[in-house]
Amino acid sequence: MGRLRCTLQYDGTLFNGFQIQPGQRTVQGELEKVLAKMHKGRSVRIVASGRTDSGVHAKGQVIHFDSFQRIPGEKWKQALNAQLPSDIYINHVESVSDDFHARFNVVEKEYHYYVLNQTQPDIFKRNYVYHFPYKLDIEKMKEACRYLEGTHDFTTFSSAKATVKGTKVRTIYQASVWNNGSEIEFIFRGSGFLYNMVRILVSVLLDVGQGKRNPEDIPDLLEKRDRRLVGKTIDPQGLYMWKVKYNDVEKNT
Amino acid sequence: MGRLRCTLQYDGTLFNGFQIQPGQRTVQGELEKVLAKMHKGRSVRIVASGRTDSGVHAKGQVIHFDSFQRIPGEKWKQALNAQLPSDIYINHVESVSDDFHARFNVVEKEYHYYVLNQTQPDIFKRNYVYHFPYKLDIEKMKEACRYLEGTHDFTTFSSAKATVKGTKVRTIYQASVWNNGSEIEFIFRGSGFLYNMVRILVSVLLDVGQGKRNPEDIPDLLEKRDRRLVGKTIDPQGLYMWKVKYNDVEKNT
Repeated sequence: MGRLRCTLQYDGTLFNGFQIQPGQRTVQGELEKVLAKMHKGRSVRIVASGRTDSGVHAKGQVIHFDSFQRIPGEKWKQALNAQLPSDIYINHVESVSDDFHARFNVVEKEYHYYVLNQTQPDIFKRNYVYHFPYKLDIEKMKEACRYLEGTHDFTTFSSAKATVKGTKVRTIYQASVWNNGSEIEFIFRGSGFLYNMVRILVSVLLDVGQGKRNPEDIPDLLEKRDRRLVGKTIDPQGLYMWKVKYNDVEKNT
Repeated sequence: MGRLRCTLQYDGTLFNGFQIQPGQRTVQGELEKVLAKMHKGRSVRIVASGRTDSGVHAKGQVIHFDSFQRIPGEKWKQALNAQLPSDIYINHVESVSDDFHARFNVVEKEYHYYVLNQTQPDIFKRNYVYHFPYKLDIEKMKEACRYLEGTHDFTTFSSAKATVKGTKVRTIYQASVWNNGSEIEFIFRGSGFLYNMVRILVSVLLDVGQGKRNPEDIPDLLEKRDRRLVGKTIDPQGLYMWKVKYNDVEKNT
């Protein structure tokens, strides 16, 4: 048996999220179906860096699994891509040591969120960006981002349904926003993210951009640790799990 | 009663083509459903500039219909967009005289076809461009385009299943191709197009780009008027009905 690390992308539109669920089409379900075929019908369990919800995309999700097949990485990639549906694509496969763990060894995650800020929707991008037709003050949003960077308790900005036990303190290395015409890109890099955290952060940043809140309100919101103080979780289709970093960064392509 | 002209776009992915068919989701079906609601349940028949097949998109399809509702164009647009599904969008509605006919009065149609020419597919564009992984000689394709422009009998380049009676002579004002890195755009403007004609033309142009045919073969293929001489009709997802022109061009936005 050998352990494999695999970087992949998927279009979340037609998946009921990442995690396997009976009777549902999920990314894990599709991956494990193909892996079982490649292992004489034996079930192969995969472990991901983290889950994504329905409609959320990935450009650089990372998984690991153990296999008795002795196949070089490039052949694994070809074999998997040949059998996977057209909304999952394997970027890279490589052998790793048995102590590599796709979830426990994560040192940094990066998420992107895309907003189309114009009156008219773009129907061809409806599953890939969030359409927001109201005027936004990008500079105010940039100011607010600066208050999010650093180490904070993000209870206010995580789903009240979160089942994670333990601390809700996370370190955000980068929270940024910029626009190219009507296209707005948010980038978040951090040690880890709580459930729905990025989608709640973007929602609050759009409130700031609209003038419903001030950038200076952020420290107070963090301080109060109360999910009820902020608005709804924004729609999933603008969100992309962009990159997952491990200690051996240079190998993670 | 007054006649309305309406320009619209749609994402063809989830439609079984434009034309209404019982039990199928079609663009015409969705439009007529909404129009019936807006006319006290009475059926309102729409007439389009032409049909599009399953998976084919439109950026500027044009339809007309007659209505007893006295509503200004901008309000029509709002009302229709509020009720239509998210993969159809009304660009513009205006009153026209009763002798305007969306199909018979067409003076020019423009289609675009998009190809992604790189080894790796882009899963996020799989329904919006055609992925072609083999090397192409764009200059050769440009040469071939020059032979297509002008007035020719396009029997060789139209579906053998075409039911259209009469001449298969059409005038192509523009047949062009250019690339921006791996993205290739084909533009065809003409007096009219036969069934599947653009998709067959692109297929032959890709053969030329691959070196399977020479640009100079085009006149001979046109001359022979035989559909069996050329390859398969290319996939629909790269095709967009881009623009339809009428005599009063300046009004058609």
